[in-house]
Amino acid sequence: MALIKASIVGATGYTGAILTDLLSGHPDVRMHALTSKAYIGRKVSGVFPGLRVDGTYTEYSAGAVSGSDVAFVCYPHGEAHGVVAELVDKGCRVVDLSADYRLKDPAAYQSWYGFVHPHFDLLQEAVFGLPERYRAEIAKARIVANPGCYPTAMLLSVLPAAAEIDSSVIVDAKSGVSGAGRTPSQKTHFCEVNGDFRAYSEVGHRHTAEMVQELGLAAGKALGVSFTPHLLPVDRGIFSTAYFRLAKGLMGTDRLLARYREFYADEAFVEVCDHVPGLGEVTGTNYCRLTVREDAAAGLVKVFAVIDNLVKGASGQAVQNMNCMFGRPEDAGLRRKV
Amino acid sequence: MALIKASIVGATGYTGAILTDLLSGHPDVRMHALTSKAYIGRKVSGVFPGLRVDGTYTEYSAGAVSGSDVAFVCYPHGEAHGVVAELVDKGCRVVDLSADYRLKDPAAYQSWYGFVHPHFDLLQEAVFGLPERYRAEIAKARIVANPGCYPTAMLLSVLPAAAEIDSSVIVDAKSGVSGAGRTPSQKTHFCEVNGDFRAYSEVGHRHTAEMVQELGLAAGKALGVSFTPHLLPVDRGIFSTAYFRLAKGLMGTDRLLARYREFYADEAFVEVCDHVPGLGEVTGTNYCRLTVREDAAAGLVKVFAVIDNLVKGASGQAVQNMNCMFGRPEDAGLRRKV
Amino acid sequence: MALIKASIVGATGYTGAILTDLLSGHPDVRMHALTSKAYIGRKVSGVFPGLRVDGTYTEYSAGAVSGSDVAFVCYPHGEAHGVVAELVDKGCRVVDLSADYRLKDPAAYQSWYGFVHPHFDLLQEAVFGLPERYRAEIAKARIVANPGCYPTAMLLSVLPAAAEIDSSVIVDAKSGVSGAGRTPSQKTHFCEVNGDFRAYSEVGHRHTAEMVQELGLAAGKALGVSFTPHLLPVDRGIFSTAYFRLAKGLMGTDRLLARYREFYADEAFVEVCDHVPGLGEVTGTNYCRLTVREDAAAGLVKVFAVIDNLVKGASGQAVQNMNCMFGRPEDAGLRRKV
Amino acid sequence: MALIKASIVGATGYTGAILTDLLSGHPDVRMHALTSKAYIGRKVSGVFPGLRVDGTYTEYSAGAVSGSDVAFVCYPHGEAHGVVAELVDKGCRVVDLSADYRLKDPAAYQSWYGFVHPHFDLLQEAVFGLPERYRAEIAKARIVANPGCYPTAMLLSVLPAAAEIDSSVIVDAKSGVSGAGRTPSQKTHFCEVNGDFRAYSEVGHRHTAEMVQELGLAAGKALGVSFTPHLLPVDRGIFSTAYFRLAKGLMGTDRLLARYREFYADEAFVEVCDHVPGLGEVTGTNYCRLTVREDAAAGLVKVFAVIDNLVKGASGQAVQNMNCMFGRPEDAGLRRKV
Repeated sequence: MALIKASIVGATGYTGAILTDLLSGHPDVRMHALTSKAYIGRKVSGVFPGLRVDGTYTEYSAGAVSGSDVAFVCYPHGEAHGVVAELVDKGCRVVDLSADYRLKDPAAYQSWYGFVHPHFDLLQEAVFGLPERYRAEIAKARIVANPGCYPTAMLLSVLPAAAEIDSSVIVDAKSGVSGAGRTPSQKTHFCEVNGDFRAYSEVGHRHTAEMVQELGLAAGKALGVSFTPHLLPVDRGIFSTAYFRLAKGLMGTDRLLARYREFYADEAFVEVCDHVPGLGEVTGTNYCRLTVREDAAAGLVKVFAVIDNLVKGASGQAVQNMNCMFGRPEDAGLRRKV
Repeated sequence: MALIKASIVGATGYTGAILTDLLSGHPDVRMHALTSKAYIGRKVSGVFPGLRVDGTYTEYSAGAVSGSDVAFVCYPHGEAHGVVAELVDKGCRVVDLSADYRLKDPAAYQSWYGFVHPHFDLLQEAVFGLPERYRAEIAKARIVANPGCYPTAMLLSVLPAAAEIDSSVIVDAKSGVSGAGRTPSQKTHFCEVNGDFRAYSEVGHRHTAEMVQELGLAAGKALGVSFTPHLLPVDRGIFSTAYFRLAKGLMGTDRLLARYREFYADEAFVEVCDHVPGLGEVTGTNYCRLTVREDAAAGLVKVFAVIDNLVKGASGQAVQNMNCMFGRPEDAGLRRKV
Repeated sequence: MALIKASIVGATGYTGAILTDLLSGHPDVRMHALTSKAYIGRKVSGVFPGLRVDGTYTEYSAGAVSGSDVAFVCYPHGEAHGVVAELVDKGCRVVDLSADYRLKDPAAYQSWYGFVHPHFDLLQEAVFGLPERYRAEIAKARIVANPGCYPTAMLLSVLPAAAEIDSSVIVDAKSGVSGAGRTPSQKTHFCEVNGDFRAYSEVGHRHTAEMVQELGLAAGKALGVSFTPHLLPVDRGIFSTAYFRLAKGLMGTDRLLARYREFYADEAFVEVCDHVPGLGEVTGTNYCRLTVREDAAAGLVKVFAVIDNLVKGASGQAVQNMNCMFGRPEDAGLRRKV
Repeated sequence: MALIKASIVGATGYTGAILTDLLSGHPDVRMHALTSKAYIGRKVSGVFPGLRVDGTYTEYSAGAVSGSDVAFVCYPHGEAHGVVAELVDKGCRVVDLSADYRLKDPAAYQSWYGFVHPHFDLLQEAVFGLPERYRAEIAKARIVANPGCYPTAMLLSVLPAAAEIDSSVIVDAKSGVSGAGRTPSQKTHFCEVNGDFRAYSEVGHRHTAEMVQELGLAAGKALGVSFTPHLLPVDRGIFSTAYFRLAKGLMGTDRLLARYREFYADEAFVEVCDHVPGLGEVTGTNYCRLTVREDAAAGLVKVFAVIDNLVKGASGQAVQNMNCMFGRPEDAGLRRKV
């Protein structure tokens, strides 16, 4: 097969850096453009000394990037939709790592993100890029909306049980600091984070919208989601704890585990395990590892899931989506640590 | 007033060390005996170079310790009840930092802790040492059962609303590593904890029993508790997130905050704040800082509370209890960082 | 004695916050003005939720501040000298935490700091604020130049041996991140620091100038200093390792320890210990703890010293200087952790 | 070429785990036995959940292991020499990760390690496994003594200049906690290490012996080494700062850098860079990255080097040695992160 010509738009954030690492080591990929706003003309290895990758950052232009087979857009929410539309228009397939094409309801962009989405048609066309659920659609998509990091962990935690959840899910999730991005701020200062821990966006974090949308589609009915993110003093990783009740009542931890194992039996990157997994088991990898428990006394199911927020929660999943889009094995280029 | 003669039984764990620091700086206390099994004859400053405290560890004997007005017993669960009984019998008042006198139902010791409790009468007599709830009883108690670290954070989070909680509380709590004690083990090895995070005792952690008992007493009816502890890569601190529904339905965050502020208006060590507090705001102190939110879309109340697990979660609260027992201001000796 | 009226100019960096904590708890101090550029009108507890201190930040004006008995100036190097001159002119005594009055040679400001110092006379008048060496002069000073954090650790490490050092000292020092200040930058981003370690300003760090000046004065002759700072993934603390040879040759670790103990016998804040101290033994305190070893095989002396960079390395030492200036016990207000 | 049959003796420490990871992903290797004392019969993935490797730990026996082409011995110092001798006797080539065959002078084992070495002949035969210096000898060796982690960083720092160093080297090195091994102890407890930093074995650490031996051989004359290790609150990595003077005097940083670049021009795993490298640039890799500076004012050269103590400092270098021994490209299996 021919090599896939790939570009990264906005390559100098943390997700851009991991994507650069993954794509430069991917056996089926040829890097095309790496664009940046702040580092034009700088070498990759000069900006990220830990990346042993050739290449120089260039300024974005639709012309240059659209020569690629696929472009990964790593712009902030609200700044990506125009570039995505432009590139698709020029015949380039896109994996968008922002939230700009994840929600189906255009009105949701006003209420959750505060802008009017100008591309209703593309919003309907875009496919939510969770391969474990939409791989057939992803294979044909022009626009893949790569899921948020928290929704990835949460959805993989609840999909096997979605149809039987009684009314709502509580998601208490904890993320490493890289989830806040590479731009310095008071809240990511080492001295503010080290030895500390707290919840943030404690009611109504934007990722709730994706969770509600996709859980509802999977369950076939609207279910509530109460999502609370917390900031962990670690670089990378999300630990998600989901709580819900089953409409039918108790079924026992063993049967729950069997159900989850069966559901994910053919998945390359979802590992159902007996123990409660720690972040370290997936750091640097594209795996989601999870387990499930019944708390019989409380009548609750608990699901514990870990991912690396920058890999399965962002850039690794983006590559997995690219593999789907171009008919490659889903794990191509994704079996090494980054 | 006369000085209080105080001893610490089992003074060389983390709670013992913090107690030693607090008591040695307490204006109303004269240190009597500091006992240890592993460090007999060693100086305090030799075992804990950060403690600038005179004193030498001695072997435990009821005779030596019972000369104190109060003894703090810092033995592991199951090993404390005999020593407590012995000291009380000799006329010494006791603050027990183990779980051995926290539960009222003797049968609970078999089901939760795996031993038959030999002192039914003392169990009934002992007072649960949460001053914010039982200070009148503590003032007269011979045995004060100092609460567990997680129950302290959880109970302070739910007491103001207890009477109106509809059926159950979910508690997703995160603790620093000092909560696991000072004895080395694989799970407290730096390389196993650093950069990691995970739940443990993920169904049926023993502290659930205290939470159920005390929440039920406060609510006037049995309420369910689903408690899940997690291990944070920090030394000290507990962050507790509690989720529950109110029987009456929604009331709004402002009214909830007002309710909590009123409930704790006279408390020296409970601070209700507008923002979500981080661990660092209470590290080294006896404060519990908390806030409350209504998640209207999900119909839920969320309470976020932080304490230092070794201070308000253990040794600081023990001193606060001692202050109550001996008629001192509750904050005596507790206004400096340890 | 009357209370000392104290102001802090530039109170919202890390050194300002620690000073605020120390002064607000100091028995002999009444806080006057707390000035800030970025937080005018904000409450102390709003900017630093961990500080349980009343007070509101105001804009700097010489008039307002000069009503104080003493002002602590916490401005960056090059921005402090004018304010200091202005305040002294109005009759206020000053402890300057910047480097602007530490060097005696005006030309040094051009070569090390890149500006022409406009106050030659005040430079000569200012006293280098290391109380262990200059307490008599500090007592009478109008301007005390509080030493840098690294020079404090280094000088306390070498002073007892200064007269006998043969030709030069190598100082390999490691600092926590708070030493880089509170303003966010790429290099203080949690993800850049956590799990990492490196040297910086690896030849010719500015603190070298203070070390050379003061070591030379103590030794009575010019001695070389090769200083290399490194950034530690911890919040607070400096660990300084100094290497030098004695002109007379070997004398043995025991005699070195005895020499150091004798030298610091009357010091409240320098602790010579047998073991190699760790940062944790001084975190939050004004102590410098150190030990000395002879490496006989290599013919070298090694001195290991720890301080908290924000306390003995900055704000604590500033308060110690104030105590000297106003005839208070040197440890007044400095025996609790901050 | 045929696959190399490889065994690991003592596979359940940190070096064993990294070796297991590296060898199981090596294209030219077939895993034979993985032995353990504590985990016999346990699966690899059960002991190390982060390792996605098949295999079960077995008890050591010379018979079973000697069926391998090469055995990696990961026993503690003093416990390895007998096993190594036994395996060599049965025709198996050995890479010994302990110190038992690193020193040429048998008497050194008494003075530095406290035991009489029973295999004088094998000691002479064994090759010091630093491929950058001894690759020709390693290619033919029956026993390769894999260097210590600190000596690896230190020797790579000084070899290009060894012939011109005037009399001695000061090495101030800082290691992550994994260097202390996987067995829990007070000193590796999270709460003792986190936020802390200190020197240990501050005079006469055993690795000094290797440094003196190999530096002397490289320089053609005896040179002194004063080595001081420090414990960093990170999992993995060594940062080594070496200080020395050149007999000829100053030559300038540029010429030093050129010298170092030329010396390592053909090396796959030594990267000379312009900037001072941080640990994170080599974590998980077999690279040593270093730079050199002249401190003209002090007449000193400083060399800053980083390695991952478990990879280039242990298991990665062991695989690099194996590649040499069996005629494979030196970087085979070593281009991915572990």
